[in-house]
Amino acid sequence: MSRFSQLPSNELFKALESAASKDTLPDTMTLLDAVRFNAEGLLPAIAQQHDTKEVLMMAWMNREALEETLATHRVCYYSRSRKKLWRKGESSGQQQHLKSAALDCDGDTLLLEVEQTGPACHTGRRSCFYLSLNDKQAHINSEPLIDPAELYGNQ
Amino acid sequence: MSRFSQLPSNELFKALESAASKDTLPDTMTLLDAVRFNAEGLLPAIAQQHDTKEVLMMAWMNREALEETLATHRVCYYSRSRKKLWRKGESSGQQQHLKSAALDCDGDTLLLEVEQTGPACHTGRRSCFYLSLNDKQAHINSEPLIDPAELYGNQ
Repeated sequence: MSRFSQLPSNELFKALESAASKDTLPDTMTLLDAVRFNAEGLLPAIAQQHDTKEVLMMAWMNREALEETLATHRVCYYSRSRKKLWRKGESSGQQQHLKSAALDCDGDTLLLEVEQTGPACHTGRRSCFYLSLNDKQAHINSEPLIDPAELYGNQ
Repeated sequence: MSRFSQLPSNELFKALESAASKDTLPDTMTLLDAVRFNAEGLLPAIAQQHDTKEVLMMAWMNREALEETLATHRVCYYSRSRKKLWRKGESSGQQQHLKSAALDCDGDTLLLEVEQTGPACHTGRRSCFYLSLNDKQAHINSEPLIDPAELYGNQ
């Protein structure tokens, strides 16, 4: 039994600030009950390639997507435009296999370490963050690995 | 003059999907006019340590915070709890110096490469993502580098 298990959900992340690696934490379902999904029931999830540490993309998860991701290790987001679960790669084949997941200190953002097959971005680029900018000018920092027409066919 | 400069703001990111590294892009202010801040006028910003590539935190920026960050190279967020600009490190001394910034494909998320002085997290840990979880159990993946009482004194 974790000494943190009896706490109300809204006090859990604050209490865990002083937890240490050796402490027994509440189980994942108890932690998910305390996660601070936004008003739309969503949590931002950052995907990082586990070995190169490149940040690939940021997308959103509802609780169902998060539970499915943790259970299957195949990353599943929630598509805000299509309003449904989005199993990354279901159209393009460019899946993400989960290596590890971590919540942040206030329980409102998730970091995923993943093995990304091919490009993460629908433009065919490895990462979605290809628009570099400084205070005056912007530039494209990477080219597509694959023509997006090849990724998505004639959808 | 960029061939993308005459586009309406709501078509710019879509058009830039097919831009290449050699293309001249619109200037930063034109790009910021097209950035898709959320209903509260905010944009999620991911901070990554530039050399180790560790993801340190995710916080929010309004346009003013983003412009200030690009101009000064000292990272400035918008605090949703305090409802004001938050120059990272103004209380703790743990500043972030901007090395580079990039928007994602649909212009609604920012990735910052930074030089982080000391811990990024208010708990004294290097990164905010210290709550690792799998489908059943969670654990604390890192210990504070500094006692948070030392970071914030008797505030």
